[in-house]
Amino acid sequence: MADSSNCDLKSLSPLQLFERVTEQGEKVRALKAGKAPKDEIDAAVRMLLSLKLSYKTTTGQDYQAGLPPRDLVLINNGTAKEEDEDFVDPWTVQTSNAKGVDYDKLIVRFGSSKIDTDLINRIERAIGQKPHRFLRRGIFFSHRDMDQILDAYENKKSFYLYTGRGPSSQAMHVGHLIPFIFTKWLQEVFDVPLVIQLTDDEKYLWKDLTTEKAYEYATENAKDIIACGFDINKTFIFSDLDYLGSSTGFYKNIVKVQKHVTFNQVKGIFGFTDSDCIGKISFPAVQAAPSFSSSFPQIFNGKENIQCLIPCAIDQDPYFRMTRDVAPRIGQPKPALLHSVFFPALQGAQTKMSASDPNSSIFLTDTPKQIKTKINKHAFSGGRDTIEEHRKYGGNCDVDVSFMYLTFFLEDDDRLEQLKQAYTSGELLTGELKKVLIETLQPLIAAHQERRKQVTDEMVKQFMTPRKLAFEF
Amino acid sequence: MADSSNCDLKSLSPLQLFERVTEQGEKVRALKAGKAPKDEIDAAVRMLLSLKLSYKTTTGQDYQAGLPPRDLVLINNGTAKEEDEDFVDPWTVQTSNAKGVDYDKLIVRFGSSKIDTDLINRIERAIGQKPHRFLRRGIFFSHRDMDQILDAYENKKSFYLYTGRGPSSQAMHVGHLIPFIFTKWLQEVFDVPLVIQLTDDEKYLWKDLTTEKAYEYATENAKDIIACGFDINKTFIFSDLDYLGSSTGFYKNIVKVQKHVTFNQVKGIFGFTDSDCIGKISFPAVQAAPSFSSSFPQIFNGKENIQCLIPCAIDQDPYFRMTRDVAPRIGQPKPALLHSVFFPALQGAQTKMSASDPNSSIFLTDTPKQIKTKINKHAFSGGRDTIEEHRKYGGNCDVDVSFMYLTFFLEDDDRLEQLKQAYTSGELLTGELKKVLIETLQPLIAAHQERRKQVTDEMVKQFMTPRKLAFEF
Repeated sequence: MADSSNCDLKSLSPLQLFERVTEQGEKVRALKAGKAPKDEIDAAVRMLLSLKLSYKTTTGQDYQAGLPPRDLVLINNGTAKEEDEDFVDPWTVQTSNAKGVDYDKLIVRFGSSKIDTDLINRIERAIGQKPHRFLRRGIFFSHRDMDQILDAYENKKSFYLYTGRGPSSQAMHVGHLIPFIFTKWLQEVFDVPLVIQLTDDEKYLWKDLTTEKAYEYATENAKDIIACGFDINKTFIFSDLDYLGSSTGFYKNIVKVQKHVTFNQVKGIFGFTDSDCIGKISFPAVQAAPSFSSSFPQIFNGKENIQCLIPCAIDQDPYFRMTRDVAPRIGQPKPALLHSVFFPALQGAQTKMSASDPNSSIFLTDTPKQIKTKINKHAFSGGRDTIEEHRKYGGNCDVDVSFMYLTFFLEDDDRLEQLKQAYTSGELLTGELKKVLIETLQPLIAAHQERRKQVTDEMVKQFMTPRKLAFEF
Repeated sequence: MADSSNCDLKSLSPLQLFERVTEQGEKVRALKAGKAPKDEIDAAVRMLLSLKLSYKTTTGQDYQAGLPPRDLVLINNGTAKEEDEDFVDPWTVQTSNAKGVDYDKLIVRFGSSKIDTDLINRIERAIGQKPHRFLRRGIFFSHRDMDQILDAYENKKSFYLYTGRGPSSQAMHVGHLIPFIFTKWLQEVFDVPLVIQLTDDEKYLWKDLTTEKAYEYATENAKDIIACGFDINKTFIFSDLDYLGSSTGFYKNIVKVQKHVTFNQVKGIFGFTDSDCIGKISFPAVQAAPSFSSSFPQIFNGKENIQCLIPCAIDQDPYFRMTRDVAPRIGQPKPALLHSVFFPALQGAQTKMSASDPNSSIFLTDTPKQIKTKINKHAFSGGRDTIEEHRKYGGNCDVDVSFMYLTFFLEDDDRLEQLKQAYTSGELLTGELKKVLIETLQPLIAAHQERRKQVTDEMVKQFMTPRKLAFEF
């Protein structure tokens, strides 16, 4: 009995282990309180010690009652002496390091896998074309089970893509485009269908918004998303508030996930407290459910158990770690993931770009003049204080926001390398680097605005209507 | 500032007060930890003491950190010396008193109102006919805002009825019929539409059931409910698992309720713990939402803010106290309620009849012979040990389950009174009283079975199809 349950322990997640220790502790206390026979108490205590040991081995931490392992907080990013810490959760990204979050440490902490050269080469072979610059440059840097997606793909087994956005305002900034630009590329090169979740219910729960306003933001944001060029025959965009009431499968999957996740677990994963509303506490299941194709009976023609691949920024990973934990227990395949880095604020990579801080953001509605002014005024520079010093010592691309943005948006690898060399050597001045960025972003955003203008209400309605997508599995 | 917030305190529920005290305590700790100025700390401490005083005045209990006021547990039912306690929540009813739960104390504890003679007379005047025996005999004994329903009704303003059932098995027992018998009567005498919720999602969350099985139980139970004789043109029966995916309004109301209820509150109301799944924790909002007519846009033709009246057993009241607390904050009218007593188990009124204990229950599928055997074998008797003693001292109707059942099912008031007299005086023996009950229940259940046979799958489908009900508001 003890042996077999110890065997099981290896397959448990840190949170499940935490719960097992807690339960066993309660059992021991109950036995003692009930004055149970000594050998029974002794056996329970031995089991408790063994569970605590497993917990320590798995998490590297001592078990502390009431303190579940928080998967995503306080990633130590400094040297042993410093108190530099990265904070990453679905709502906040904060680091004291001007280079941004330490992503290698994040991979270790989250337990995901690095997208290495081998994987990038394999993707190149599978699709028969050059990988996207986001892959070449480590902007999508981490994954879960991408190798399994490729195994299946090479055996002619397809998958679907799932990504999303929380529509907290009408204003989308360039950083919001990153997952959509990449997802559009994935849709094209793998030729697969795609579902895009707009979590208007989440924004209603977290912000001071009416449901009507949240839904309005969702449909407005849908226009910017459609303007990225998704294939209307293979893409379904949905608002939770709207779609939950028109799918026979979505709510069933939500309830299934909700049955298999405890408050202790979401407390550990998302940091919820007893004062949080029950809507927040149960919301993670709503973001989990689109990972299962049975949530979309109309879209996939009733086909279930289609493999799902989720491209998203790494701060969304906690939702999908939870989803992957639950999936086998409700008879569903685990979704695979591709994680991107955060898009830095203009002021520096210590935080991500945020629509609620206009000075930190370049919006998709900004004019060429606004773009120019914002970059010149706010973009944190890795250059030196004086031209003389800059010429002598060179600039620092690792902390220069303009250079970072160019790695996201400048397609030409050689040109980017030249700029890096020139800036590092001091040949290129900050103003000149900023000029390159301005000239890269201005036409890109103007083109987006042009495409967005052509997105009609009728098109939005079409994209958001549940219907069979043009794809056979 | 302090004045105005003290003013507000009077309108706060015990749970809201509990949260205010907790928050203020945290504020004081934070100020002290942050070495805030002394006058700032002093002001915060004064506020804390004032909040604790309000809490004590409202609840009669001292504030205890981490222990929210539990609205529904441990109603002291004995004398001061005894440890007799009634436990009532939506899942458990338990008392040590053979007469059953002390309902007068429950009214005080729950803060509802007694259905007194004045109210019964008023109902009689409003509907122009004799009130149902459940009202005449105190089986529906408590209410919230029934006078407002009558005020409005007398001014030609109508309302809708909402009741429900948790479909935990195929087997329904006679006790399950009580709310439906009464609701059918209300539908007839007031001529109003009715929605009936089958919480198959709840049963999936609480029991070891698949969603398919829970839904199957829901449709099977619907047949027994339909057999009670509801008007198909004015009645909508729905399974949560099914209807949530076909209503544009239901999920929106669920999310609205979920935004306005914290984990602390459901912990206090329902006794949930950190180890409970997030599905259970958020479920109360699913039972709350049908109290708002906007959850049924198809049914009420898009009409919102129609007043709702909920007939239910008193153990369901915690859901609707929560609902009534939230309603004004989301711009909805508070539902009114009519509460029934519990239907006692065959073994005695210490617990309610439960389908999971076959010996405690008379099922709607039982044969005349089974009914006879169960009553003769299991129905707790208030009679004396020997015929001689019984003749001499008489029987005790207050604890006699057969007599209790007759108060539920024997329509003739005079006959019931005669039986009571005869049994109490010792003239009528236990076997004779049981015979009256058997002869009352057998034809009643046979008639139910006959009507149920006539309920076709097509009829179930019709009742469960979202459609405009034949009623104009």
